[in-house]
Amino acid sequence: MKITAVIMAGGKGERFWPKSRTHLPKQFLSLTADKETMIQKTVARLKSITKPEDIFIVTNKMYEELTHEQLPQIPKENIILEPCGRNTAPCIALAAAVIEKKYGEETVMLVLPSDHLIRYEEMYTDTLRQAISVAESGQRLVTIGITPTYPETGYGYIQFERDTTLGMRGVYQVNRFVEKPDIDTAKSYLSSRKYLWNSGMFVWKTSTILMNMEEFMPKVYSGALEIAGKFGSDEFESTLNENYEKLPSESVDFGIMEKAEEIYTIPGSFGWDDVGNWLAVERINSTNELGNYVEGDVITIGTKHCTICGGKRLVAAVGVENIIVVDTDDAILICEKNSTQDVKKVIENLKICNRATLL
Amino acid sequence: MKITAVIMAGGKGERFWPKSRTHLPKQFLSLTADKETMIQKTVARLKSITKPEDIFIVTNKMYEELTHEQLPQIPKENIILEPCGRNTAPCIALAAAVIEKKYGEETVMLVLPSDHLIRYEEMYTDTLRQAISVAESGQRLVTIGITPTYPETGYGYIQFERDTTLGMRGVYQVNRFVEKPDIDTAKSYLSSRKYLWNSGMFVWKTSTILMNMEEFMPKVYSGALEIAGKFGSDEFESTLNENYEKLPSESVDFGIMEKAEEIYTIPGSFGWDDVGNWLAVERINSTNELGNYVEGDVITIGTKHCTICGGKRLVAAVGVENIIVVDTDDAILICEKNSTQDVKKVIENLKICNRATLL
Repeated sequence: MKITAVIMAGGKGERFWPKSRTHLPKQFLSLTADKETMIQKTVARLKSITKPEDIFIVTNKMYEELTHEQLPQIPKENIILEPCGRNTAPCIALAAAVIEKKYGEETVMLVLPSDHLIRYEEMYTDTLRQAISVAESGQRLVTIGITPTYPETGYGYIQFERDTTLGMRGVYQVNRFVEKPDIDTAKSYLSSRKYLWNSGMFVWKTSTILMNMEEFMPKVYSGALEIAGKFGSDEFESTLNENYEKLPSESVDFGIMEKAEEIYTIPGSFGWDDVGNWLAVERINSTNELGNYVEGDVITIGTKHCTICGGKRLVAAVGVENIIVVDTDDAILICEKNSTQDVKKVIENLKICNRATLL
Repeated sequence: MKITAVIMAGGKGERFWPKSRTHLPKQFLSLTADKETMIQKTVARLKSITKPEDIFIVTNKMYEELTHEQLPQIPKENIILEPCGRNTAPCIALAAAVIEKKYGEETVMLVLPSDHLIRYEEMYTDTLRQAISVAESGQRLVTIGITPTYPETGYGYIQFERDTTLGMRGVYQVNRFVEKPDIDTAKSYLSSRKYLWNSGMFVWKTSTILMNMEEFMPKVYSGALEIAGKFGSDEFESTLNENYEKLPSESVDFGIMEKAEEIYTIPGSFGWDDVGNWLAVERINSTNELGNYVEGDVITIGTKHCTICGGKRLVAAVGVENIIVVDTDDAILICEKNSTQDVKKVIENLKICNRATLL
């Protein structure tokens, strides 16, 4: 069966300010020493699964040029430009309808975020292959779960149980999707060993997801079909621009996964990282013997456990510990490691003061 | 009697890197909100004591232009340009010999550092006036002592005793000058109440200091006299450039004050600050209700007890405490408050790497 992939790349990624900006969100940044951007890595990871011409990117209109620049191998037609963000359900429904229009019904579709990192790529592709088998074998929704390592409160969880019907090793039936828990609930999930993290990676046939959309999100379904009907014609862009914002803004987790039947999960242990904030940089790169991760022109004296991303100028860090420094041409961030969630307050402040050039 | 002042402005001021540089030392910087530089303040403070044409500046040749720019009211002739640093004794001897050549013997000479701050200027000028009276009344060396407030180990101390000869209120006889003490000694000095801090401000007649130079530093004396003999002629500059580096490099404290007789001190309590490192900035300016001192384009979120000197770009400080941030066009310093003495290690590093543009 034909395998296609849909990469969702419309996110704003404010948590990587000042490197990420409204016009340059996280998925188009490199946060690793190799300088490949997050979305480039996401596409490269699929090379043994599918071909570039079967990869679709859904992103905001604003990022059209960035996407073409960073992913010249993806056909322009495959880049679907949202006029506005409408969360994951309309994005997935439209992509599914477009793919079905282009290739016909019997097509597998991987749905992947564009801004996560994977440490063990072979294990990742093995997991995807297994998910593809499950998806092909019926009208099944497959989600990649991540084996939790600590009680994270920033992710959704998937409650699973031993599969009683499929009889495929390593594939589990999903009982329910749950939203981000509080810390005590997260701890109980972890100790129960019945929950996985929800990675936001899905595998299904286009017919399966569209069938579920029709049942649980009929407005999204009919709207997506209307737009996709013009795919390949001159009217596609104008129809998209006119109708997309009318679709209800909803996540596929809430709109479909919390309601549908026949959901399976495959637990992945391939070194997944959602790269959620600046703390990720020291995780995904290696730190030196003093616990520092340093890039660019940096001098450290008596400095420990710091992440310093230099820009065009010298950064001298003297006697500091546990801070993150990010230098760019027009702004520098100096953030205590426990305060990364407050970087968004800087952005709020910039918005209030109408300082658009810094956003 | 004619009152002249000699402002010593040859210092390198490495401790204010990255704002201070080899070509722009501390005395030519403003570290206060009013934007007046340290040396401009030093000159302005003398307005009720002497006239600009009787103020002499001794500085390094490198700072010729800066001195003219910042102090246009000082006659060019009065700016003595050292071809190299030779510590305070040769600098003072040469200035004294030049002033004596210009005005004759009976001239009072104030010797003042160019990079200290004074909070209570009236008390300062009152103290200087009293010192002038003592200096005029005989062959006396007068030094301004600072009443210590804590056991500082970075200053020299002056041991004084009640004057038994002059009978002038507030003037004390100096027993001895002592070098920077260790912490226990500094504590014993403080509790003994017999020691003052040595501020490096002196008042004497030119004849008095030259008489002492002749006795205790004959080489410095004869060398200074030889150079000063050409003052006002075309040969002054070449004689200075040729002979100055031959003078022994020595401080007036060690060369004269530790050996001479008839030394008096007047304790000043005029809010003296030697502005020794970046910690001074929050002392000499006022901090806000969170204990921060902030200048320039700065956003603080959850930030306390920090000093942030912004430059041309936005500085966003999130969740940090007790750090000093100084932004300039080509370098940024991020320094824990207890580590200000280690800023010099950054400079050492830059020297080792031959990064002259950053020095």
